[in-house]
Amino acid sequence: MKSQMNGAESLVRTLLASGVDTCFANPGTSEMHFLAALDKVGSLRCVLGLAEGVLTGAADGYFRMRDRPACTLLHLAPGFANGLANLHNAKKAGSGIVNIVGEHATYHLQHDAPLTADIAGLARPMSHWVRTSASSHEVATDGAAAVSAAREGAGRIATLILPADASWGEADRIVGAPEPAARPDVPAAAIADAARALSEPVEQGETVLLLGGEALRERALEWAGRIAAKTGCRLLAEGQNARMARGAGRVKIGRLPFDVDSAVAALAGVRRIVLVGAKLPVAFFAYPGKPSLIAPHDCEIIPLADADHRLDHALEALAHELGAGQLAPAHVAERRAPGLPGDMSRPTPDGIAAVLAAHLPEQAIVVDEAVSVGRGFFPPTAGAAPHDWLNSVGSSLGYGLPVAIGAAIAEPQRKVLALIGDGSAMYNLPALWTMARERLDVTVVILANRAYNVLRGELARMGGPEPGRVALDMLSLDRPDLDFVALAQGHGVPARRAQTLDAFSNALAHSFAEPGPSLIELIVN
Amino acid sequence: MKSQMNGAESLVRTLLASGVDTCFANPGTSEMHFLAALDKVGSLRCVLGLAEGVLTGAADGYFRMRDRPACTLLHLAPGFANGLANLHNAKKAGSGIVNIVGEHATYHLQHDAPLTADIAGLARPMSHWVRTSASSHEVATDGAAAVSAAREGAGRIATLILPADASWGEADRIVGAPEPAARPDVPAAAIADAARALSEPVEQGETVLLLGGEALRERALEWAGRIAAKTGCRLLAEGQNARMARGAGRVKIGRLPFDVDSAVAALAGVRRIVLVGAKLPVAFFAYPGKPSLIAPHDCEIIPLADADHRLDHALEALAHELGAGQLAPAHVAERRAPGLPGDMSRPTPDGIAAVLAAHLPEQAIVVDEAVSVGRGFFPPTAGAAPHDWLNSVGSSLGYGLPVAIGAAIAEPQRKVLALIGDGSAMYNLPALWTMARERLDVTVVILANRAYNVLRGELARMGGPEPGRVALDMLSLDRPDLDFVALAQGHGVPARRAQTLDAFSNALAHSFAEPGPSLIELIVN
Repeated sequence: MKSQMNGAESLVRTLLASGVDTCFANPGTSEMHFLAALDKVGSLRCVLGLAEGVLTGAADGYFRMRDRPACTLLHLAPGFANGLANLHNAKKAGSGIVNIVGEHATYHLQHDAPLTADIAGLARPMSHWVRTSASSHEVATDGAAAVSAAREGAGRIATLILPADASWGEADRIVGAPEPAARPDVPAAAIADAARALSEPVEQGETVLLLGGEALRERALEWAGRIAAKTGCRLLAEGQNARMARGAGRVKIGRLPFDVDSAVAALAGVRRIVLVGAKLPVAFFAYPGKPSLIAPHDCEIIPLADADHRLDHALEALAHELGAGQLAPAHVAERRAPGLPGDMSRPTPDGIAAVLAAHLPEQAIVVDEAVSVGRGFFPPTAGAAPHDWLNSVGSSLGYGLPVAIGAAIAEPQRKVLALIGDGSAMYNLPALWTMARERLDVTVVILANRAYNVLRGELARMGGPEPGRVALDMLSLDRPDLDFVALAQGHGVPARRAQTLDAFSNALAHSFAEPGPSLIELIVN
Repeated sequence: MKSQMNGAESLVRTLLASGVDTCFANPGTSEMHFLAALDKVGSLRCVLGLAEGVLTGAADGYFRMRDRPACTLLHLAPGFANGLANLHNAKKAGSGIVNIVGEHATYHLQHDAPLTADIAGLARPMSHWVRTSASSHEVATDGAAAVSAAREGAGRIATLILPADASWGEADRIVGAPEPAARPDVPAAAIADAARALSEPVEQGETVLLLGGEALRERALEWAGRIAAKTGCRLLAEGQNARMARGAGRVKIGRLPFDVDSAVAALAGVRRIVLVGAKLPVAFFAYPGKPSLIAPHDCEIIPLADADHRLDHALEALAHELGAGQLAPAHVAERRAPGLPGDMSRPTPDGIAAVLAAHLPEQAIVVDEAVSVGRGFFPPTAGAAPHDWLNSVGSSLGYGLPVAIGAAIAEPQRKVLALIGDGSAMYNLPALWTMARERLDVTVVILANRAYNVLRGELARMGGPEPGRVALDMLSLDRPDLDFVALAQGHGVPARRAQTLDAFSNALAHSFAEPGPSLIELIVN
């Protein structure tokens, strides 16, 4: 039946032949043939989101858990623009995504119809690869090239612009993207150099193994733990990480702190940093009189592997080179007795973290966008049941709820816990509706401090005067208070409010016991 | 105290000196000095929005009603990206906006911190003018240039990128943007040519005066009405218009229909089109076998004036040239007796329009994003109390609620009525919270058909097969139903639901009688 196939159908079949089986979509007129092709072809799952930030974030979450790209289906330049902030987050996280952006028919562009704008221009800053299909006969080749581009290295953002006539015109082929090339291994000489450096005598903790990307998966961390057992080096993760294996029985590892002073203090006295999938640590922002680079000036930097390398191999080889291959890993987290805090009244950050640690289900996926309240959640949850912990890497607000969607779709048998600041939640709140529609197993906890609280600290760090009325007003979310129970119910998600740790604990237990999404608004101000 | 002034303060004072007194803001760390300067300077009104699409749309609405630019304050590339879709809408509407986008300190950019991305690259497709301030000493000059750029012609999008060190560094000047040059008048020879064309004998209705931009303000329409009285030409507005003066006592004018077949039919038999602030009419989208250009092939096009011209002058001169200067305008709308429909049960589009016409307050501002349901609202409201009617021009969904904010802030003594489709509402719903916070006099009517209904028509027009399960699923908003009463209350806006015209009429009367925002969810499926 090849003669009846149009460009859209050749694209859908190409995506499937290339291992892309999930589409996060918000279609418009120019994407109608793609929808029709989905019906004809049948096996590509299509998930609707009511705003495009939901979709690009969902594709990010999907990649983080599945290690392969989903596609998005977006409507022309403005629809694509709405998804850019979460593409920024995905790009920084090293996630692979194939964006399919509908465009006017090629011959219609000259007329500057209302929705016409420069899609490719918008795409470039947030994409590694951008192409516009020239005709329906090229769409399959272009689609396969997009998938290949998205699978390069740790993961890339590929944006394919699909003119309507390339979608509805006749097509004659289906292309399967070739299997991605194996990720490169670190050369043996570099392993040997790093091993020599790690073997040189320095005091305990003066050498840091700074891990990022896939060096934070379970097996890679075990090798890192053996290296630490042998050499006494410290293990640290970058400040923001796409995904980290954590919990009882796994090698426990801290993160570089967010605020510049704490980060500088964390690396004070460090003589040597070995980078494994991590970048040179930099301050989140510049501040008057504070450094951009976090490490001490005289610290030796050894860039062993970047995020595109096979990082488990690199750590394994390094461990063997050091003669640590058979050692028991250091820093293995013991399982904590699941105890609740003694005082279950006021929800302090430590108390919240203890409740989370007690309730976290086995193999939970934690999506952390708790921003200011959540900074301290990390250490108390280190001995919880084994879980994955996902952070925002690009740090644009609104990543958490969408990423939770993608994670839940990628791993339907696991519980997803999304910890979201109230300010963050307001960027992509319609994500709740998609959770309800797809009956995703997501527990959303809104940490409602009714402020952009992180910015109050930032205002002080900027060294300005005491904040005045306008500044405080711009950092407050309390006039009026947002009612997240009503907001969740409005999106079709059951919700309850907790003002004490006790109520929070009960709500959390209840939510984890039930299938489908639910939301807890935890008042923390 | 000039020696103590920093770049941010010089910018705030420059904006005020240049007539920009309103800022729609969602600040982050890099904008903290701007906030501090607002407190120090005092008289620039700053309005917080919880998502950036709210802010750029609000600035669009403000310009449409005030005819001068407001500024936005946005946080780095991702925050700016979130505002791009409504900048697209503003750009197509001819609105002037000054975007101030915070950027990392110049020396920090090289380190590729998490929020680093190419702001200028993102800005170009949706801006007429883009500049990055090189230092704190340049900020005032750059700010004044941005205001001048935004005030060019009918209105332009100007984007000023403000590095943090340009914000906190020392500054030494305040610059007032010069008064904008007078908008150009159409040359007398062109007026004479158009008058000759309009005087040539053709049948009634075979000549169309196609109006756009400021040709749709009250006085300009009066001149158009005189021209129609003299020549028998038809008056038509473009399909999408930033602002149109309507209601009893004003010259009544239709719009080109949205769907391509109706638009072609509306211009069938037309021999001559005089463009006054309007562009050559084009189809919204291309469809297989349908034309891109709407006018008949042999139709003569006379481009008298573009949107940047003084359009009231052009129409006045044309009327005088035709000897129509003293005539009574044709097509003046008579005031309808404010009657309600006989059947007040089922909310049909005609019934809804009649209820709107009966209740519309004097000088109301109607922000129309009713999409499919609202297509028929125009004729029945022509004889309502005098009002302004605002459409989406760029047609990216999510324009309406934000534009209503800007209109209400620009014209605090007037009632704003926002007619919003349920699909559209979900793009920038946090606009409701800003309405509550600023106690804006906005009545929001959500026309809940629980579908992207417009797309069902588009699917058919694309000529594909009968829509299948996936396609229908992607165009439906009913699994689960959104509850806009809960959503509004969650944002702090009182709300009620109407399922009959009677309930709608009561709710509308109630809402117009009370100050502050309220929302009515009208179920129309």
